[in-house]
Amino acid sequence: MNAIGVDVGGTKIAATVVTPEGKILNEVRYPTQAVPPNRLIETIAAAITEVKNGFEVGGVCLAVPGLILAAENKVIISPNLHEIENIPLDEEIGRRTGLYVTVENDANAAAWGEFRYGAGKDVEHQIFITLGTGVGGGVITHGVLLRGADGAGGELGHVTIESAGPRCGCGNHGCLEALASGTAIRRRAREVASDQPYSALGRLAIEREVLGEDVTRLAHEGDEAALQVLQETGRWLGIGLAGFVNTFNPEVIAVGGGAARAGELILGPARKEVQLRAQSPSRDTVEIKEATLGPESGALGAAALARGADGEYVLGPSKRVV
Amino acid sequence: MNAIGVDVGGTKIAATVVTPEGKILNEVRYPTQAVPPNRLIETIAAAITEVKNGFEVGGVCLAVPGLILAAENKVIISPNLHEIENIPLDEEIGRRTGLYVTVENDANAAAWGEFRYGAGKDVEHQIFITLGTGVGGGVITHGVLLRGADGAGGELGHVTIESAGPRCGCGNHGCLEALASGTAIRRRAREVASDQPYSALGRLAIEREVLGEDVTRLAHEGDEAALQVLQETGRWLGIGLAGFVNTFNPEVIAVGGGAARAGELILGPARKEVQLRAQSPSRDTVEIKEATLGPESGALGAAALARGADGEYVLGPSKRVV
Repeated sequence: MNAIGVDVGGTKIAATVVTPEGKILNEVRYPTQAVPPNRLIETIAAAITEVKNGFEVGGVCLAVPGLILAAENKVIISPNLHEIENIPLDEEIGRRTGLYVTVENDANAAAWGEFRYGAGKDVEHQIFITLGTGVGGGVITHGVLLRGADGAGGELGHVTIESAGPRCGCGNHGCLEALASGTAIRRRAREVASDQPYSALGRLAIEREVLGEDVTRLAHEGDEAALQVLQETGRWLGIGLAGFVNTFNPEVIAVGGGAARAGELILGPARKEVQLRAQSPSRDTVEIKEATLGPESGALGAAALARGADGEYVLGPSKRVV
Repeated sequence: MNAIGVDVGGTKIAATVVTPEGKILNEVRYPTQAVPPNRLIETIAAAITEVKNGFEVGGVCLAVPGLILAAENKVIISPNLHEIENIPLDEEIGRRTGLYVTVENDANAAAWGEFRYGAGKDVEHQIFITLGTGVGGGVITHGVLLRGADGAGGELGHVTIESAGPRCGCGNHGCLEALASGTAIRRRAREVASDQPYSALGRLAIEREVLGEDVTRLAHEGDEAALQVLQETGRWLGIGLAGFVNTFNPEVIAVGGGAARAGELILGPARKEVQLRAQSPSRDTVEIKEATLGPESGALGAAALARGADGEYVLGPSKRVV
């Protein structure tokens, strides 16, 4: 049966009706900023009711950034969405919509979306990494979504790959996120621009703040300084991925998020580093590739998780039983 | 029903009859060195037949160091046991013993032993780390033994925690194994002894080669140089464990192997580093403790895995169904 996946983010609330095959039948988007204070739950419920619009729907899953206690359908911590913390969302939104409602971490939902419909749709072992402002992750191993004891598992951006590396937003030093996120690209671009002021990157940095997409564009145009930034980023990414390859022996690593738009400029050096650092046979069988669903992965994965909502849900439904 | 777990190692072949509750009923040990060339399979089969000795037994699992393809009951690579590589052990040993035979990686078997009968017996999410000559690992998440696509998952000793760190036996630089194994302790002890020749550690190093157990003994006696070696080792261990805490959100991390006999001298600094580097709530709920089964963990875990040997075996039997 169809299900509704809702991407609840700091910028938008996007509710989507999805078929079991992953086809999007209807979509509604509200800007999060336009939601009046204390109306977030009502707005999510309204988006669900509006998108449902006559479609037959079996359940809803919300994909929310932050720490989720899936077993209780609660958001424990969500830095930009405090309003929905510690509320039984199944009851509050279920009551308003008449639908069965569950909650999942947004990166886990996106990982599940890629696993069901995208880069990992033919495998049982997939890692998903999203390179955005931060680095998010989700792991599917033996067909099971890895949530861990409290639902906080899969935080792949926060493994130390350089013990005295740059400080991370989480407080640690040398996390993968501190070295291979969009934020890290901008920081490194400033440093390289300052070292190479006559490069295209250096000249742009004198005019205005350099964004991640500027680095990608200049690298595509052949600027050596911009290429260096992306190569270094890819190398750090590969150091992290090599550890995941040895830890999980996955068939596919799907890389998504804004910084992944640099494509081979980042993934090429990352693959090379994995070959240098990971063990056989894991390094030989793993396929490291771009995620295929783009920003829809969260809503698609959430819808797929909603569909599996039953007694087995907390353990992560296997692809074969969903 | 009872099962037989066989620890097939470079020094000994130990076959053990184990009850479903983890009680050892009988044990047979052969020194591996005494096995004539090309007689390893016969010797393993003889040990199984001898230990069975009238006990009712449902199946056998061999715990073997190296890369195991559990789905085919084959050892693909085992550096010190080439004789049993790429042979269908279920057929070869099954035929000789009349028993159903499976194979598992030794660290995975030990992890499963601690999960069923030891440090993790009351939880669903456990990480096992063994600090020996190298660093081995095994992961149980949502009650499932993490084998990965080729059976090569759980290689927790080979994650990079220092990108330009010491060279590891696997060829990589800065692996957890290169910084927190028994081998790393001996290397660091040589360096610290050389820097502090008047310490007890330094004086011993002039007489003879310092072993891991010497470092532990001298540290217990209060030698600052030996304490420094173990504190540094514990800190590196903690850097690795912090990544596993964020990745897996486990309830228990069980630390075993020879170097774990240093106990709190290593685990204390490791816990401190996890608190500094891992995120809430994972770092708050995880319990980092010594493994409880000692060298029997592999045989006990193998016996427990043998008992689960059926169609679901390849995915790792859940604790609830075994």
